[in-house]
Amino acid sequence: MSAGMVYGVGLGPGDPELMSVKADRLVRGAKHVAFFRKSGRYGQARRLVDGMLRNDAAEVAMEYPVTTEIPLSDPRYNQILSDFYTESTARVLELVRAGEDVIVLCEGDPFFYGSFMHLYTRLKETVPVEVVPGITGMSAAWTATGAPITWGDDVLSVLMGTHTEDELARQMGCADALVVMKLGRTLDKVRRALRVAGRYDDAWLIENAAMPEQSVMRLSETEGRVAPYFSIVVVHGQGRRP
Amino acid sequence: MSAGMVYGVGLGPGDPELMSVKADRLVRGAKHVAFFRKSGRYGQARRLVDGMLRNDAAEVAMEYPVTTEIPLSDPRYNQILSDFYTESTARVLELVRAGEDVIVLCEGDPFFYGSFMHLYTRLKETVPVEVVPGITGMSAAWTATGAPITWGDDVLSVLMGTHTEDELARQMGCADALVVMKLGRTLDKVRRALRVAGRYDDAWLIENAAMPEQSVMRLSETEGRVAPYFSIVVVHGQGRRP
Repeated sequence: MSAGMVYGVGLGPGDPELMSVKADRLVRGAKHVAFFRKSGRYGQARRLVDGMLRNDAAEVAMEYPVTTEIPLSDPRYNQILSDFYTESTARVLELVRAGEDVIVLCEGDPFFYGSFMHLYTRLKETVPVEVVPGITGMSAAWTATGAPITWGDDVLSVLMGTHTEDELARQMGCADALVVMKLGRTLDKVRRALRVAGRYDDAWLIENAAMPEQSVMRLSETEGRVAPYFSIVVVHGQGRRP
Repeated sequence: MSAGMVYGVGLGPGDPELMSVKADRLVRGAKHVAFFRKSGRYGQARRLVDGMLRNDAAEVAMEYPVTTEIPLSDPRYNQILSDFYTESTARVLELVRAGEDVIVLCEGDPFFYGSFMHLYTRLKETVPVEVVPGITGMSAAWTATGAPITWGDDVLSVLMGTHTEDELARQMGCADALVVMKLGRTLDKVRRALRVAGRYDDAWLIENAAMPEQSVMRLSETEGRVAPYFSIVVVHGQGRRP
């Protein structure tokens, strides 16, 4: 019996119609789907394929052992996550070695942040893995604002809210167009950094882009708001426009 | 009679299967498609929908009056392009006012660089315009390298080869992961800037990502190569990986 394949499939930002034709085909035909989720949750990647799976599709839910309970700086954090990814890899490998194809469901694009890559690096030397790119959450976010993110020769920087305020402000001063992700509890720090960089009044906050509950607000009009982790802040470039 | 709609549709990076389900549906149903192309060429956006259009679909080819013949710094450049976009807008508007929907074909993502936005800003106050995001060429490029572009808290910067060498080198020193577009005749300058920033040996050159003629090479192994304009240089981030 020959081994199966792993497909790391980008599902796009949230709207099932923004899945690629290839992702749609792979998901609908899957006998085995695997996905990451927070313990006790249904899982955002899993939700994106609701109503698309075969009735007999088997599901491998890979549940994060920790997320925010232990600080990133704690050495246990890395070790616990490393063990988790090793164990998740073993679960996928067992199926693949038994000849099965496994579709790993990935929000957005599999190689652009996210968890899939930790599985990918552990699998790729052992079994064939194909990666299917997807529309990123940031594309859906800037589309939702109704204005292009970059023009002409604009420099775009993608930043994480987890950086220090000083580092954020420095980076924000370097680029023309900005995307800031990993918000949630970091949002007030991101606000301060945007003010230091002189970009606060031009920033937008997008929540749940490409989903029915999508909201788009000027960031300056959301003081005190508790934004979900998957919110995105966008500052548009102002480059050459004939 | 009510006016029609304009759809700015991201077609993704090149593989028709990487078009979104929504783009696929809109393209196959279109009565009118409009697209930009170089004078005398078939057009890359048009090529992406080969075999997908209805037999009776009408095509509006919008042909750039100049591209590289006049330098960007020449004031005539902006004026000629501005007139061209105004005239292209009028061609689309005429159809929309006659009640027709017009699908504007866009490579990659419509709001991420590209020409569609110049049509969009001229249309959006007058007629309804819906923008459908797409998978970017850069996503296809990093997917082609077989390695994730960003991990953990990596900063990603997207740069244009049209910047000065000094500015490129400065930007390349600011970010963890890099994407450089608009290459072609700027490639040697980009090589020098990458060397100054100490990133040259880690850079990859991807040509025709997600297309049958796709090629992926270490940039350092392509000295003297004439890369097509739509090549992309990628330097992967090396962030946290449990």
